Amino acid sequence: MVTEQTRLRCGRRAVIAALSAGSVRKLWITSGTNADLLARAADDLPVIIFSPSKLTRLARTPNHQGVVALCADAPDHSWQTAIAGVNNPLLVVLDQVQDPRNLGACVRTCAAMGVQAIVHPKRRAVAFTPAASHAAQGGDQFVAIHAVTNLARELVLLRDAGLTLIGTAADAKHSIDDLDIAGPVALVLGGEEKGLRRLTREKCDVIAAIDLPGKTQLANLNVSVACGIFLAAINRFRRQAQVN
Amino acid sequence: MVTEQTRLRCGRRAVIAALSAGSVRKLWITSGTNADLLARAADDLPVIIFSPSKLTRLARTPNHQGVVALCADAPDHSWQTAIAGVNNPLLVVLDQVQDPRNLGACVRTCAAMGVQAIVHPKRRAVAFTPAASHAAQGGDQFVAIHAVTNLARELVLLRDAGLTLIGTAADAKHSIDDLDIAGPVALVLGGEEKGLRRLTREKCDVIAAIDLPGKTQLANLNVSVACGIFLAAINRFRRQAQVN
Repeated sequence: MVTEQTRLRCGRRAVIAALSAGSVRKLWITSGTNADLLARAADDLPVIIFSPSKLTRLARTPNHQGVVALCADAPDHSWQTAIAGVNNPLLVVLDQVQDPRNLGACVRTCAAMGVQAIVHPKRRAVAFTPAASHAAQGGDQFVAIHAVTNLARELVLLRDAGLTLIGTAADAKHSIDDLDIAGPVALVLGGEEKGLRRLTREKCDVIAAIDLPGKTQLANLNVSVACGIFLAAINRFRRQAQVN
Repeated sequence: MVTEQTRLRCGRRAVIAALSAGSVRKLWITSGTNADLLARAADDLPVIIFSPSKLTRLARTPNHQGVVALCADAPDHSWQTAIAGVNNPLLVVLDQVQDPRNLGACVRTCAAMGVQAIVHPKRRAVAFTPAASHAAQGGDQFVAIHAVTNLARELVLLRDAGLTLIGTAADAKHSIDDLDIAGPVALVLGGEEKGLRRLTREKCDVIAAIDLPGKTQLANLNVSVACGIFLAAINRFRRQAQVN
């Protein structure tokens, strides 16, 4: 049986969030799964008992905590739909993040920070796999994840939609704290190894860095940590703009 | 053979950082390891060829990227030594972080943010294992990792040393952005599941939260992401204090 990986969620918190949202179509559990999880299941939901090793093969990760869910395919994951009617949109663009746990951690962070959608390329980037869903801890129920064929073209569409594109790079002249951008923003982050590609960087309105006082030659941050620090700064600008 | 796990580092960046620091005493590599890594090894360093599966057993994680190093045991990991002569100390206390990747990600973030030492309990917390070293990406060469027997007692010592203890909790009355503490700080973060223990929380001078505008019921952050956002705020207060 081949199951579309991007429709699978695994881990207790990811599956509980999907159950609460009513989007689960099928559930696989181990015989030891806590009953409190099943109490959230809708009537008539098919539930199948699997061994832990079979769950690992299904989810392609051992981090399933004894539960995997098949979710309904959302009719529309597009950022355009996600920001429809939103007063001050906040989006994140991920340029070729490779590690599913990093993608999932970014989704979790974006959900907490009030981001409507994550835009990322279909090619040379990890998809939202079950391993990513475990790290996202249910955040994907609140953030649309939009995979696009041509990221550079999408950036033009984002700018045309009125969003300021804030690119991020360690060698940027501007610190994020020196900016003060309280309007609609798409924050553009590079992948783990190479950062932003040239074409991506050129499309951004401004490039910003995080101040890193550490004296390490390797001073750098995990992409989900950087994502959180940039979004915290943008949310601070927004709160200050409301006060003033 | 039993090798002390906290002296092992694994993954390319972690091992390269340890080689650069001159602290590697023995190296295990797969036959496919890049020669550029060996070029950094000191004369007379013993190097042993292992299969990937033997490396996985040694490091107790598959994320070794074909290289594991045994490091010299540093004579002193104490926070007291780490802040000796430091003008404005910045420490992080982790109360019962359980996941080695979270501990490693905190170490990486602390290195980039200029933190001198991480203090964490010996019991009910993960040690700095090889899996943690992979996530730390070499940051442990710049941050002392001090495991203590009694965390509550250590918090008293930290305060006696002149540090303000900033505890962190989602239900805090204060936003970190509303504080303005530019002096010596120990930032106190809870573990993944339970946050700060009561005894830990009571020892703190102030409890602060990150503003999370996300409308999710599960609005929360990974501990390394929270660590990065709090440290970025503290570093911002320090820069502003220097300007004023």
